[in-house]
Amino acid sequence: MTETNPANDHVAREEGLVFMPRFDQNGLITAVAVEHKTHQVLMVAYMNQEALAKTLATGEAWYWSRSRNSLWHKGDTSGQIQTIHEMRVDCDQDCLLLFVSVGADGGCCHTGRPTCFYRVVNTDADGHTRLIKQNNEI
Amino acid sequence: MTETNPANDHVAREEGLVFMPRFDQNGLITAVAVEHKTHQVLMVAYMNQEALAKTLATGEAWYWSRSRNSLWHKGDTSGQIQTIHEMRVDCDQDCLLLFVSVGADGGCCHTGRPTCFYRVVNTDADGHTRLIKQNNEI
Repeated sequence: MTETNPANDHVAREEGLVFMPRFDQNGLITAVAVEHKTHQVLMVAYMNQEALAKTLATGEAWYWSRSRNSLWHKGDTSGQIQTIHEMRVDCDQDCLLLFVSVGADGGCCHTGRPTCFYRVVNTDADGHTRLIKQNNEI
Repeated sequence: MTETNPANDHVAREEGLVFMPRFDQNGLITAVAVEHKTHQVLMVAYMNQEALAKTLATGEAWYWSRSRNSLWHKGDTSGQIQTIHEMRVDCDQDCLLLFVSVGADGGCCHTGRPTCFYRVVNTDADGHTRLIKQNNEI
């Protein structure tokens, strides 16, 4: 690593205004989708370079489906299109935060729920960890 | 994959109440930390099995630092301890959501800011993408 390579320049990456997303060894960057009004965290997914380019070009969220190994226009079949209101990037530019509004019924999770995070991880006094479903999201 | 292995049983993983976190090929699970009152997304980091166990046991966020290759008790030196108010897991149990309160000055990012997501990704009419710092978070 040398300071002459902007990709390795921490100051430029952290304080600069040049977008230089860092994709991991699988060519993916993490993306957190949040409902733009309520700030409810909806899902965490991944984009490859093409998905990110399509997201920026269309204003709708495109991901890379790791399970299907294919480009994924979120909501293409369900109508639950995620329209981007704002995209942010974190300090070291290896994670994106998407503020979105959701089409159709406003759902997000493939289980039909509005968010993928519908279970609380609970550890009781004996140290046993169990999941608890939230009443309003079952 | 067989249906007799609970780890491969999608119904158990998605609808069950047994916590079976899925670590990736590097032994890590993604964790999104959110301020528990404001729901502001603070950071995205990673936990290995030990970090997750310590988080559950102590009620404070422990991560695995990929840059330092070491266990990381967030706030250990800065005082910006993240106390867990609630932990959630997503549908396929490969991502955690932490609702936290932050100690000391309430900061999170190593740059000194309250959140790691202090820059907006903006694409202008000509298709040029630039970052914009938020006034209240510079």
